[in-house]
Amino acid sequence: MGTNSYETGRLNLPFVGISTFGKNPYQPDWDAIDADVAVMGAPFDFGTQWRSGARFGPRSIREASTLFSFGHGGAYDHEDDVTYLPADRVRIVDIGDADIVHTDTLKSHANIEYGVRKILAAGALPVVLGGDHSINIPCIAAFEDDCARNGPIHIVQIDAHLDFVDERHGVRYGHGSPMRRAAERPWVTGLSQFGIRNVSSTAREGYEAARAMGSDILSVRQIRKLGVEAVLDRIPAGARYYVTIDIDGFDPSIAPGTGTPSHGGFVYYEVLELLAGLAKRGPIVGVDLVEVAPDYDHTGTTAILAAQVLMNFLGRIFHARGA
Amino acid sequence: MGTNSYETGRLNLPFVGISTFGKNPYQPDWDAIDADVAVMGAPFDFGTQWRSGARFGPRSIREASTLFSFGHGGAYDHEDDVTYLPADRVRIVDIGDADIVHTDTLKSHANIEYGVRKILAAGALPVVLGGDHSINIPCIAAFEDDCARNGPIHIVQIDAHLDFVDERHGVRYGHGSPMRRAAERPWVTGLSQFGIRNVSSTAREGYEAARAMGSDILSVRQIRKLGVEAVLDRIPAGARYYVTIDIDGFDPSIAPGTGTPSHGGFVYYEVLELLAGLAKRGPIVGVDLVEVAPDYDHTGTTAILAAQVLMNFLGRIFHARGA
Amino acid sequence: MGTNSYETGRLNLPFVGISTFGKNPYQPDWDAIDADVAVMGAPFDFGTQWRSGARFGPRSIREASTLFSFGHGGAYDHEDDVTYLPADRVRIVDIGDADIVHTDTLKSHANIEYGVRKILAAGALPVVLGGDHSINIPCIAAFEDDCARNGPIHIVQIDAHLDFVDERHGVRYGHGSPMRRAAERPWVTGLSQFGIRNVSSTAREGYEAARAMGSDILSVRQIRKLGVEAVLDRIPAGARYYVTIDIDGFDPSIAPGTGTPSHGGFVYYEVLELLAGLAKRGPIVGVDLVEVAPDYDHTGTTAILAAQVLMNFLGRIFHARGA
Amino acid sequence: MGTNSYETGRLNLPFVGISTFGKNPYQPDWDAIDADVAVMGAPFDFGTQWRSGARFGPRSIREASTLFSFGHGGAYDHEDDVTYLPADRVRIVDIGDADIVHTDTLKSHANIEYGVRKILAAGALPVVLGGDHSINIPCIAAFEDDCARNGPIHIVQIDAHLDFVDERHGVRYGHGSPMRRAAERPWVTGLSQFGIRNVSSTAREGYEAARAMGSDILSVRQIRKLGVEAVLDRIPAGARYYVTIDIDGFDPSIAPGTGTPSHGGFVYYEVLELLAGLAKRGPIVGVDLVEVAPDYDHTGTTAILAAQVLMNFLGRIFHARGA
Amino acid sequence: MGTNSYETGRLNLPFVGISTFGKNPYQPDWDAIDADVAVMGAPFDFGTQWRSGARFGPRSIREASTLFSFGHGGAYDHEDDVTYLPADRVRIVDIGDADIVHTDTLKSHANIEYGVRKILAAGALPVVLGGDHSINIPCIAAFEDDCARNGPIHIVQIDAHLDFVDERHGVRYGHGSPMRRAAERPWVTGLSQFGIRNVSSTAREGYEAARAMGSDILSVRQIRKLGVEAVLDRIPAGARYYVTIDIDGFDPSIAPGTGTPSHGGFVYYEVLELLAGLAKRGPIVGVDLVEVAPDYDHTGTTAILAAQVLMNFLGRIFHARGA
Amino acid sequence: MGTNSYETGRLNLPFVGISTFGKNPYQPDWDAIDADVAVMGAPFDFGTQWRSGARFGPRSIREASTLFSFGHGGAYDHEDDVTYLPADRVRIVDIGDADIVHTDTLKSHANIEYGVRKILAAGALPVVLGGDHSINIPCIAAFEDDCARNGPIHIVQIDAHLDFVDERHGVRYGHGSPMRRAAERPWVTGLSQFGIRNVSSTAREGYEAARAMGSDILSVRQIRKLGVEAVLDRIPAGARYYVTIDIDGFDPSIAPGTGTPSHGGFVYYEVLELLAGLAKRGPIVGVDLVEVAPDYDHTGTTAILAAQVLMNFLGRIFHARGA
Repeated sequence: MGTNSYETGRLNLPFVGISTFGKNPYQPDWDAIDADVAVMGAPFDFGTQWRSGARFGPRSIREASTLFSFGHGGAYDHEDDVTYLPADRVRIVDIGDADIVHTDTLKSHANIEYGVRKILAAGALPVVLGGDHSINIPCIAAFEDDCARNGPIHIVQIDAHLDFVDERHGVRYGHGSPMRRAAERPWVTGLSQFGIRNVSSTAREGYEAARAMGSDILSVRQIRKLGVEAVLDRIPAGARYYVTIDIDGFDPSIAPGTGTPSHGGFVYYEVLELLAGLAKRGPIVGVDLVEVAPDYDHTGTTAILAAQVLMNFLGRIFHARGA
Repeated sequence: MGTNSYETGRLNLPFVGISTFGKNPYQPDWDAIDADVAVMGAPFDFGTQWRSGARFGPRSIREASTLFSFGHGGAYDHEDDVTYLPADRVRIVDIGDADIVHTDTLKSHANIEYGVRKILAAGALPVVLGGDHSINIPCIAAFEDDCARNGPIHIVQIDAHLDFVDERHGVRYGHGSPMRRAAERPWVTGLSQFGIRNVSSTAREGYEAARAMGSDILSVRQIRKLGVEAVLDRIPAGARYYVTIDIDGFDPSIAPGTGTPSHGGFVYYEVLELLAGLAKRGPIVGVDLVEVAPDYDHTGTTAILAAQVLMNFLGRIFHARGA
Repeated sequence: MGTNSYETGRLNLPFVGISTFGKNPYQPDWDAIDADVAVMGAPFDFGTQWRSGARFGPRSIREASTLFSFGHGGAYDHEDDVTYLPADRVRIVDIGDADIVHTDTLKSHANIEYGVRKILAAGALPVVLGGDHSINIPCIAAFEDDCARNGPIHIVQIDAHLDFVDERHGVRYGHGSPMRRAAERPWVTGLSQFGIRNVSSTAREGYEAARAMGSDILSVRQIRKLGVEAVLDRIPAGARYYVTIDIDGFDPSIAPGTGTPSHGGFVYYEVLELLAGLAKRGPIVGVDLVEVAPDYDHTGTTAILAAQVLMNFLGRIFHARGA
Repeated sequence: MGTNSYETGRLNLPFVGISTFGKNPYQPDWDAIDADVAVMGAPFDFGTQWRSGARFGPRSIREASTLFSFGHGGAYDHEDDVTYLPADRVRIVDIGDADIVHTDTLKSHANIEYGVRKILAAGALPVVLGGDHSINIPCIAAFEDDCARNGPIHIVQIDAHLDFVDERHGVRYGHGSPMRRAAERPWVTGLSQFGIRNVSSTAREGYEAARAMGSDILSVRQIRKLGVEAVLDRIPAGARYYVTIDIDGFDPSIAPGTGTPSHGGFVYYEVLELLAGLAKRGPIVGVDLVEVAPDYDHTGTTAILAAQVLMNFLGRIFHARGA
Repeated sequence: MGTNSYETGRLNLPFVGISTFGKNPYQPDWDAIDADVAVMGAPFDFGTQWRSGARFGPRSIREASTLFSFGHGGAYDHEDDVTYLPADRVRIVDIGDADIVHTDTLKSHANIEYGVRKILAAGALPVVLGGDHSINIPCIAAFEDDCARNGPIHIVQIDAHLDFVDERHGVRYGHGSPMRRAAERPWVTGLSQFGIRNVSSTAREGYEAARAMGSDILSVRQIRKLGVEAVLDRIPAGARYYVTIDIDGFDPSIAPGTGTPSHGGFVYYEVLELLAGLAKRGPIVGVDLVEVAPDYDHTGTTAILAAQVLMNFLGRIFHARGA
Repeated sequence: MGTNSYETGRLNLPFVGISTFGKNPYQPDWDAIDADVAVMGAPFDFGTQWRSGARFGPRSIREASTLFSFGHGGAYDHEDDVTYLPADRVRIVDIGDADIVHTDTLKSHANIEYGVRKILAAGALPVVLGGDHSINIPCIAAFEDDCARNGPIHIVQIDAHLDFVDERHGVRYGHGSPMRRAAERPWVTGLSQFGIRNVSSTAREGYEAARAMGSDILSVRQIRKLGVEAVLDRIPAGARYYVTIDIDGFDPSIAPGTGTPSHGGFVYYEVLELLAGLAKRGPIVGVDLVEVAPDYDHTGTTAILAAQVLMNFLGRIFHARGA
């Protein structure tokens, strides 16, 4: 949000200025992160199985986020009568992108993991902008030490696809596998997989494995029938939550700019209300939002959706923390 | 709609012919307006705070409106079993655009006001195509004499944003302020502000001022919970209504072509049913539809939405009048 | 779906390979069709009254269908716990396109009819990819012999428009007339016309004629009020069904890529559930999907929708048949 | 150009106002054409063999032409030190579009011919905006009476394709045949076919027939080698010229918005200089410009090119006439 | 260019990282500019007379400039065998954007002038990214003190349009007037206006005034006939040069993304060679590049062109200075 | 081109039918290749350093190639008076795509190499459609056995970039390195690198290494100064030529749809004349065309260029062979 800038001499309209996330300060020195939230880009897309282009996701989300950066010193929501993200109480920094090495998945993933570890070491909430969903793999890997200190995490996934492929033609780190990789980590206690629908790279075997490994899988229609409260009740209480949002969990009508769209997805408030409820249910310790591919987002609605979801989720996370 | 042209020798398919609104007659002589409805463009967009381009809104809406101009001599709606806008009973003219002077907001606004005054003087219903939402300011200003003769107006706004900024860095006539300017007019009795949601250029202070000045503010979710009838009941009965439709009141899924999209908006029938109910509740004395920005409307759905809403709203207004 | 290819040496990701429908085998020899389903393109668009471009519909749907061609040997749906279209039990072929002769509607239609007759003669289910809706005329004409042998058909139409214009300026075979042409066929017992809304090329007279000729016309809102089961109950039981899907029956939010979009349409699951219910109600003997115009589908969502609907409908048709 | 409007009270910027050609007066009454130039649209595109969409060519050219409508009362060219199209000396009207009947090529062509005959009867220069190149067929047909009175015409064609197919599968009036149809007219003395290159729908036989029927065929490279003056010298002197400009004669770099682009085409000044020279060489009695397909013209450069060429060609035609 | 980063641990591919100009350091503190070059955005577009959108020019150029930011520590050009912009010798900073106040031209221009004055006061070369061409007015105004100290400037303009309108309807600060405003400044000794062609907002009177005020006006064709050296010789020697590049000076084939394209413009090397020659001829003391409108630049070529021209011009400027 | 189909009953217009290359037969069985030319897609793009998306290059080129597939039984060129690619003398097959494994560069490259080896083993000319330029690495590797039998190859590259990076951050097989990898092969005798210009991923060291390893590097401007014949003379005579065409060797005006455009490139005929001359100079034994990225090719001109270049190059190759 930035501080209230009107008295300091600048109107600072959304279309003005460098595109950092929410026009928050840019901190290129990863040893000097001093903030409540640190946003990092992970522009990696070699893990995609249909349309690529998610490498430009971080830049597109940053630019879209400037729409929400009016210099009010906070974001007033009249429905809740709350000013979220008060500039004097929640400090957000943008630390730029993890270094990506073309043709090299493991090295790129290692660089992403390094960045998340730096954020966690600084005591900030990591918010990682993908990139394809495979970037969740190093994000979860980076929690190893944090979980050793603070306890394990439960993953809440918003997605059209289960992403639970084990290995196929030797591929273990593509965007079809992150949830399986996560489930294998000792510091991950379970998964809530929401929005899953239609055919995908995960075959029947993957669903069976997910359930066997403790996943709770719900489709969009199942969630609509249950209602937000009942869905929240299925998520283990008292846990530390890591939230991974694949933008294709949303309906293609509002999120066309993604690699593998799947019709019949969530509308905006369905996800916001789930996330807002989760923020009240327990601490959110990490967030990633993946698969925004601006080449398929000619109108910008997908990037705006990503920015709007993140801004409002952050607002509710810190409001729950008392900010 | 035009008259039934099939017997007069032309098939006149939608893709054929000059793009006036609904292919209705073009009347460039503003002293010779002789019609029930006069459509005028107000291609002004210097009031925008993010994406510009609404200057081409009038042209895009006119072109889209040709889709609804089959030469039937009226628009048959099987759900209502009514032929709206019978060509022999409702006369619509397109009077072209107000003259816009680049770099000069006040002069451009004055020219818009001049056009609306001409329409009102001719006894026609003004329908103004924006342009950004600041063009509502001269539209409401133009009602001064009309209201002196016929009584004040109540404004019904469909919008994602409250547009109630007072003054900031000296700006009083941007697209963040029209509703505050309207509320200040002695001939405006009150405002119903529907669809308002999420962060915008109006801060908490603006909401408080709006409520203090008599606004009824409802979000999309609040309106869904209330239902159409309950919402209509909150609008003062027996008033003369002016309706201002910011296309971003609709959801970005159907209205991506606008400057500042906000997720979680209205779907088509929610607004149509509100407008249809309002047309039954009392006289509609003026309409503007703003913020269509065709550069972000690659598929044309936004302009089609604008044209479809206006055509159907006009049909219901004149059906309520007995046409 | 193709057979499970993982063991046969190829990963065969969706972005890899020639774009036949679902990457199924291409059979250019129409005397050698040996399959359960034969997909044919009908790239004809001279029948359109506003935006053309549906001639590239078949190519765009084929390309989009590759997204659903993961080499699993079937399409697992976790909501139903069914693997649809098992590769060893349902054989699909793509026979390419009917030959289209520019400027000549009758000759082009004759070529489409020829192709459908070939498919029916081979005992396969014809799935025709339009092209504009006028291509339904030769599709229905092609059922003459089949119906003489196997009994008449009832047509279920998903569409925004009634398409019931009789003749205007001599035009009888444009995209505004297919349902009237169908209703005239002795081997068509009736029509269920779903999703019809707003103004179109059919005037009041057409609606009256349709009802007189036995049509059941329901708007989107009427269908929502009735619910899926009540709607299905209005369709004659025990009939042989031919399904014609105009992509503009869907909402422009998910189907912008079409010639004459109409706001207020179906969302994805509304249609899927109708089609799934119909597949259980009786045999589906023919399918066409028309009016996908990729020039207005920059993000690809419309073509993806068409492919997703067809894939899932085929899955449910053959699951109902015991495959 | 319109008259100099600055003193009459309106600034009339290009983005303001109804899109007639050059914002010239709209004359829907074809019995009341009173002008030096009459511009008519011919939005027909069923004659195309690859990408359609030229039906929206007239609308796109009209809108682009507003860029050249600054209210100066004429178009000053500093290179020539001439003010072309002085508003008080050259009167241009836009008479709208010929009526097009979908699915019916002959009827549509007849309506185009009717419009051109009306223009010629009024003594105005016909400028026809296509539509695909087949619309040249009725344009040339319409000259029958005019040529009987005033003598025959020589056709100068700017095009990538020879368009000299005789008949194939019964097609005689598609966009691959107009020049052959023209060559068959008794009132056409010959053709100069410029810009012809690469593979097209005309096979070797067509080239041989063209040469046998008196065509002078030159490629872009041949014209560059010859130079403008030498090329002009090959055109019969003292003739009445009809100019048909297929926008694909230009290079795809500046004219991507067309159905069948062919690389290696003309750049802007090559054609302008040819046309300017031709205007000096003899009277231009008719002009058509075809194949602008705005769906492939996202940036608008193709429509701008069409408008710029026509505006400047008209300027030079009337300057040569002494206006 | 940034320093050679390969040894410092990051590959830093073009698609990675925050989009500052050339990925150079961001310096938001305008009192702490310590560099050879300071790049500032001026996202103002209320001065446009046709298509707006140049407000997003700075962001689009910054993003495109990352393509040229390989971490080599300099830009090697094999044709010249020179490594331009050696990172250890030329220090570039990006200072973000001037504050723009919607609806208020004078206030916005004042803010731009303030930024350029800050850059000049710091002794850095100002490079301003527009915005529409009216932003040149405050840029030139800002040189008042600098010129008082260091002598006057000569302006070299690359443009399709003369931009020499005096006043019309009260407008003096729109994008049609900057060169007239510049010519009026006592510290501007003359103008070289290159690329001027076709009809524009400047009428004959403007050309005459320009020549009277000392302008040298050359069209693209005139420059091609003269050759680079002869053109350079017409520019006063021994002067301090300010270069203003309107991207529409280039041909629409490579610069479609602009408000008022004009066919027949410069190709890339024509301008580069002029600029390279000018850099050798005398000191370049200021640069602006205007009218990049990314909404019309779907492929990104226009923004890439702007970045490529600026990068290479800067390289040649500092190479001429001995860096 | 396909055989002349007019007598065989189909008109087979370009927009009709499955998109194989030139609508030639599809041969999925790589052990049954029986043709003069075998076209294979290599949809790999993990090697890109800026914009990805070249994975859809093969599909887009195939679709564009249908424009050149009129059923004439050959491609008549009136400038040469030759019918190229006579259907009865040159047999072309499309063998589909190499299998790509996401996240795994080496495995994907191995699959490409396997396909080229199969083509060479069948005695056909391999034409490989990229994909990014790194796919040239396995293409050249595949020639090992062929060169052992038939002698080494000389590589002619059309490209904006030198692609001569050795190793950086461990990357050896990205799209910045193929020419260095080629130069290292014992069966490659040298390289002619044409069109090289501007800054790229290859630094000065790469140019020096290339020259040391025997490369002849020429920029576009240098080639224009030399002329086609002089350039051809610099290529070793009597060699077997492998041609690799990076579409970004062409100017962005005609090839915007690519990952890393560079202004100042070749126009169409410059390259065609070079390739035509090379085909006369010696045998062409392999071709790849890379870096077409359709997501940036909204108008399709880039894919059309690729198809047009390949079709015409193949025509000239086989004409030189006497076909």
